[in-house]
Amino acid sequence: MDSLRIGVMGAGRIGTIHAENIARFIPQAVLEGIVDLNLTAEQERWAKGLGSRIISRDPADLFKASGVDAVIICTSTDTHADLSIAAAEAGKHIFCEKPIDISIPKVKAAIAAAKKAGVVFQVGFNRRFDHNFARIREYTLAGSVGDVQMIKISSRDPAPPSPAYAAVSGGIFIDMMIHDFDMARFQAGSEIAEVYAAGAVLVDPEIGKAGDVDTAMVTLRFDSGAIGVIDNSRKAVYGYDQRVEVFGSRGAAMAENDLPNTVKLYSETGVTGEKPLYFFLERYKQAFVDEMVSFVNSVQHNKPAAVSGEDGLEDIYAALAAGKSLKEKRPVMVDEIRKQ
Amino acid sequence: MDSLRIGVMGAGRIGTIHAENIARFIPQAVLEGIVDLNLTAEQERWAKGLGSRIISRDPADLFKASGVDAVIICTSTDTHADLSIAAAEAGKHIFCEKPIDISIPKVKAAIAAAKKAGVVFQVGFNRRFDHNFARIREYTLAGSVGDVQMIKISSRDPAPPSPAYAAVSGGIFIDMMIHDFDMARFQAGSEIAEVYAAGAVLVDPEIGKAGDVDTAMVTLRFDSGAIGVIDNSRKAVYGYDQRVEVFGSRGAAMAENDLPNTVKLYSETGVTGEKPLYFFLERYKQAFVDEMVSFVNSVQHNKPAAVSGEDGLEDIYAALAAGKSLKEKRPVMVDEIRKQ
Amino acid sequence: MDSLRIGVMGAGRIGTIHAENIARFIPQAVLEGIVDLNLTAEQERWAKGLGSRIISRDPADLFKASGVDAVIICTSTDTHADLSIAAAEAGKHIFCEKPIDISIPKVKAAIAAAKKAGVVFQVGFNRRFDHNFARIREYTLAGSVGDVQMIKISSRDPAPPSPAYAAVSGGIFIDMMIHDFDMARFQAGSEIAEVYAAGAVLVDPEIGKAGDVDTAMVTLRFDSGAIGVIDNSRKAVYGYDQRVEVFGSRGAAMAENDLPNTVKLYSETGVTGEKPLYFFLERYKQAFVDEMVSFVNSVQHNKPAAVSGEDGLEDIYAALAAGKSLKEKRPVMVDEIRKQ
Amino acid sequence: MDSLRIGVMGAGRIGTIHAENIARFIPQAVLEGIVDLNLTAEQERWAKGLGSRIISRDPADLFKASGVDAVIICTSTDTHADLSIAAAEAGKHIFCEKPIDISIPKVKAAIAAAKKAGVVFQVGFNRRFDHNFARIREYTLAGSVGDVQMIKISSRDPAPPSPAYAAVSGGIFIDMMIHDFDMARFQAGSEIAEVYAAGAVLVDPEIGKAGDVDTAMVTLRFDSGAIGVIDNSRKAVYGYDQRVEVFGSRGAAMAENDLPNTVKLYSETGVTGEKPLYFFLERYKQAFVDEMVSFVNSVQHNKPAAVSGEDGLEDIYAALAAGKSLKEKRPVMVDEIRKQ
Repeated sequence: MDSLRIGVMGAGRIGTIHAENIARFIPQAVLEGIVDLNLTAEQERWAKGLGSRIISRDPADLFKASGVDAVIICTSTDTHADLSIAAAEAGKHIFCEKPIDISIPKVKAAIAAAKKAGVVFQVGFNRRFDHNFARIREYTLAGSVGDVQMIKISSRDPAPPSPAYAAVSGGIFIDMMIHDFDMARFQAGSEIAEVYAAGAVLVDPEIGKAGDVDTAMVTLRFDSGAIGVIDNSRKAVYGYDQRVEVFGSRGAAMAENDLPNTVKLYSETGVTGEKPLYFFLERYKQAFVDEMVSFVNSVQHNKPAAVSGEDGLEDIYAALAAGKSLKEKRPVMVDEIRKQ
Repeated sequence: MDSLRIGVMGAGRIGTIHAENIARFIPQAVLEGIVDLNLTAEQERWAKGLGSRIISRDPADLFKASGVDAVIICTSTDTHADLSIAAAEAGKHIFCEKPIDISIPKVKAAIAAAKKAGVVFQVGFNRRFDHNFARIREYTLAGSVGDVQMIKISSRDPAPPSPAYAAVSGGIFIDMMIHDFDMARFQAGSEIAEVYAAGAVLVDPEIGKAGDVDTAMVTLRFDSGAIGVIDNSRKAVYGYDQRVEVFGSRGAAMAENDLPNTVKLYSETGVTGEKPLYFFLERYKQAFVDEMVSFVNSVQHNKPAAVSGEDGLEDIYAALAAGKSLKEKRPVMVDEIRKQ
Repeated sequence: MDSLRIGVMGAGRIGTIHAENIARFIPQAVLEGIVDLNLTAEQERWAKGLGSRIISRDPADLFKASGVDAVIICTSTDTHADLSIAAAEAGKHIFCEKPIDISIPKVKAAIAAAKKAGVVFQVGFNRRFDHNFARIREYTLAGSVGDVQMIKISSRDPAPPSPAYAAVSGGIFIDMMIHDFDMARFQAGSEIAEVYAAGAVLVDPEIGKAGDVDTAMVTLRFDSGAIGVIDNSRKAVYGYDQRVEVFGSRGAAMAENDLPNTVKLYSETGVTGEKPLYFFLERYKQAFVDEMVSFVNSVQHNKPAAVSGEDGLEDIYAALAAGKSLKEKRPVMVDEIRKQ
Repeated sequence: MDSLRIGVMGAGRIGTIHAENIARFIPQAVLEGIVDLNLTAEQERWAKGLGSRIISRDPADLFKASGVDAVIICTSTDTHADLSIAAAEAGKHIFCEKPIDISIPKVKAAIAAAKKAGVVFQVGFNRRFDHNFARIREYTLAGSVGDVQMIKISSRDPAPPSPAYAAVSGGIFIDMMIHDFDMARFQAGSEIAEVYAAGAVLVDPEIGKAGDVDTAMVTLRFDSGAIGVIDNSRKAVYGYDQRVEVFGSRGAAMAENDLPNTVKLYSETGVTGEKPLYFFLERYKQAFVDEMVSFVNSVQHNKPAAVSGEDGLEDIYAALAAGKSLKEKRPVMVDEIRKQ
């Protein structure tokens, strides 16, 4: 089988990761191009070092190129949908970072464009590929957990974003908890029917002034009848806290944090181990590779994306419903959002 | 200091535990009497074996006795308040099993009677004395956790009660989660302002027919601004799951389950350890002793009860608010119940 | 079945524990007497409080008493063998603290006396009854570990004894590691064929001056072909370290330390849990009860002692062989000691 | 600084790993050449894919090449010393897989040649770079463990080598435990003074017929006065067991195994987690990268190798001493080997 020729759009933090992963770790793919509106000389050298043939400031260079089979969209969120549509129209398979957009019509248009073009459209919810969370899902699918009854997700960042970022990020549900809505749906094997959000400003008053919360707990009801809860904090001083628990009629599967090493120090004052891996770059390092492998496989073997556009849409529905719940201080059916 | 002379009312499962603990483990107390409306010959022999002087079917025998300083009320829930009032009027210090009653006026009357009589009135929320949960509170009080921001409590039974019991028990919030409301208040150091309850019948349809749920998640908002969540299931096949997590501005303290031993078996199929201790008798064995020691200390040193009648009242408020939230599908301010 | 009437000889630390355990926790036994050569007024009050009928300074009072079925010998080590012989001649069943004696002829005489009298003779190696170590043995007996190939035992005290005590204790192998030799034999289900001892004075030079070592590692070869290692330190600053690992053809069973609680504190500097339970009184609290229950059962059901006099003898052989190995800097066959 | 240009000798399992690591993960190095006596067409394609300029069946091609600064020697053990000498004479820096040789004069000749040529000579004891074991050493160097008193190393393979391999491998001490001797010296910060080896054939009788053992425990005495023990088994059915424990006057640092994920499954039969990572390729994946980074740094910054030729020599001394101890059934001073 020929290698999949991939172009990366956006050479920021996440685009860099995907480009390097493709160049280094995915033998069945080739890094064909890197484009960025503000490409620096340093980025150019880096792209050359990775063996990229196309290096440009114009995204269209990837669409026009006959030698590009797929694009990875890692540009700013507000361009995701438009670039996805353009890519679809150019017949390129699409891996789009999350969220697709925060405007539902634009999300739907992107999904429709990919469907019409018959291209694979995968959304970058990398945590489904995490070794811990994927293992939980395996247990559930194997029947070891029985019928899923409760799902609990803790997801806490080591440090808050700048208030400026918080202001434009869409808020904690769109920016941060959207990953957890996706995880909840993935683990439940069921859509979210209703949410109830409790939130508070306990970390940084500036976040409150920007109209957001920094601490949140969202109760979920799934179509399956299961219930769940997600908690988020913008600041866990002990590091990136990423745990998932699935409880069912035959047992439970629980994932603890990943640590940098297993050493424990026994001393007069206690037994001390390491804090969790610092943040998502460290914790989800391999998951970023594995989601890309999955994307390449989907294209090459003509299989549906592991995380589809519809998944991305449902995650946004849940995030918007949570925002509405917090504002209106009541449980909100996700259908209220879906049917708007 | 003279030993505290204690009479136990009700020789059922929990009365038996308290009587034996007093006789064996609390040097500064004496088991002076055991009364039970339906005392059997076997129970009589057991009571004699423990050295109890008064053995009777009439509760009043304890109130009349000059040699009894305090009573432990372990009779059926509907008699707790009346016996507490009678004990207070007889000038006896009172340790009353939870809940005091499910009628708020009766609870208030019992509290008032104890106050008027100037006797200690402790309610049997034994989990505050659990080695794990007490340690978490110590960490918080020492400042190690900083300001409390989130509290998470998992509390799951190994097997559901009979549907018949469930019907008369007052439901999952009064019968089971009331312990967790008390734990939440204890750990938060703050009262519960608002609750939102999600519930489902996932374990046993008979429980649903009896008008109750068997799986529940309740979101809490505390006066302090902290938020929390409690989850209950009537059936965790892996045993009694009792975990608490307190998250704050300076860290988090988390308690895992107690296990019968620390052995792990390494085999071709994995590494297997024990399930949690089976149920509350095993898990809270020492906590039952320690709450009694605390009660005896309060009486002997003229200190307030570690778990007061007001605590018992607040826990019932929270439970009733949760029931109302579940029924009305909306968050409920606990003040709605308090001010009824 | 009638209760077993037990007399305790020696009201020191360990005698106190046995007496209280018998009085409180063993319904099928009665604490009939307590004797101690130097019984104080306070000990007398304590003995009365436990309901002991015979309270005396003369050990013979227990032997003469018709109402005593068994004795617990907790006096100083140099009297164990003589009192055991006297007890056997008086027809009393015997529970003797370890070691029986450090003179092999005296140990043999005690064993022979018990055999001749047809009484149960149990030696106080309480660790076999520890919940962790007993569980490992259960796994092995159930075949989960397969053929035992390696045994590793770590046994470290939180603080060294006084050099004065060390001088008269018989040394680290007799005083401390003898427990571990017994554990090794118990877990191996096989006798020790050969030992090689490495030792060092790393904790306290005074111990070295007294002719002993404070740090030791002893390699074991069992008759079964398995090999093992025991390490001892007189001072682990993080507390009493008691771990056992049994490795075999089908897997391994490993016991970690017991902790006072399961709480972990997550902070900026790491994740900290508790140190192990402080020392043997805390760690083996329940094992002291359970060895006594086992003794009572052996007597009442006419079964061999769980830890026999022969076990005690073999443990001493191993300890003496280790001492010889250390002195002569060579591996020593236990038969060299057995056949002396 | 210019990139270090590296040639890899031997394209077997370990040579492949080093070549790929250099090409992918070490920006300050370039994979300049790959030579293998029996280079296949497939290996040639692979080498080209990695961007190697020199691809050859003749090792001398690397020595002659002006553009090669350093060589990685991954050929069969019996060629290590000769190739090291040839590389030194050609002025190339040397990274040599372990063991350098099993003939001490050849090892000494290789060390001398490197010294004379003034090139860096690093030996491939990759475990020093393992995240767990390196962390323990950090704790010790920081004083957290105090004076090292005991070292315990468990090192067990998931499956035995073929008896044919075992026969030519030099035996368990040279082939397998040599890693652990190096680890022991690394953690002790002291040379091994004496060893005592116990061994048994418990896994595979064929190994015994080949004159080797498959289960071994070696007691160590260090020059520092510390003592230690290493245990090896050729077959742990639960996977690759790699644990280290360093115990000292101020505490202890202990490393547990690495697991593929942190998930635990709670079921009616217990709580089950994963087995350790399967074997050295999985467990030491990152350590192979990090030892190479260290080598490159040593060359570029003119620093001594992190694992020197002298280290490799001392490890062989210890292994030979252990073999002699096993054969002669007595403790053996390492000086007996050093001074031969």
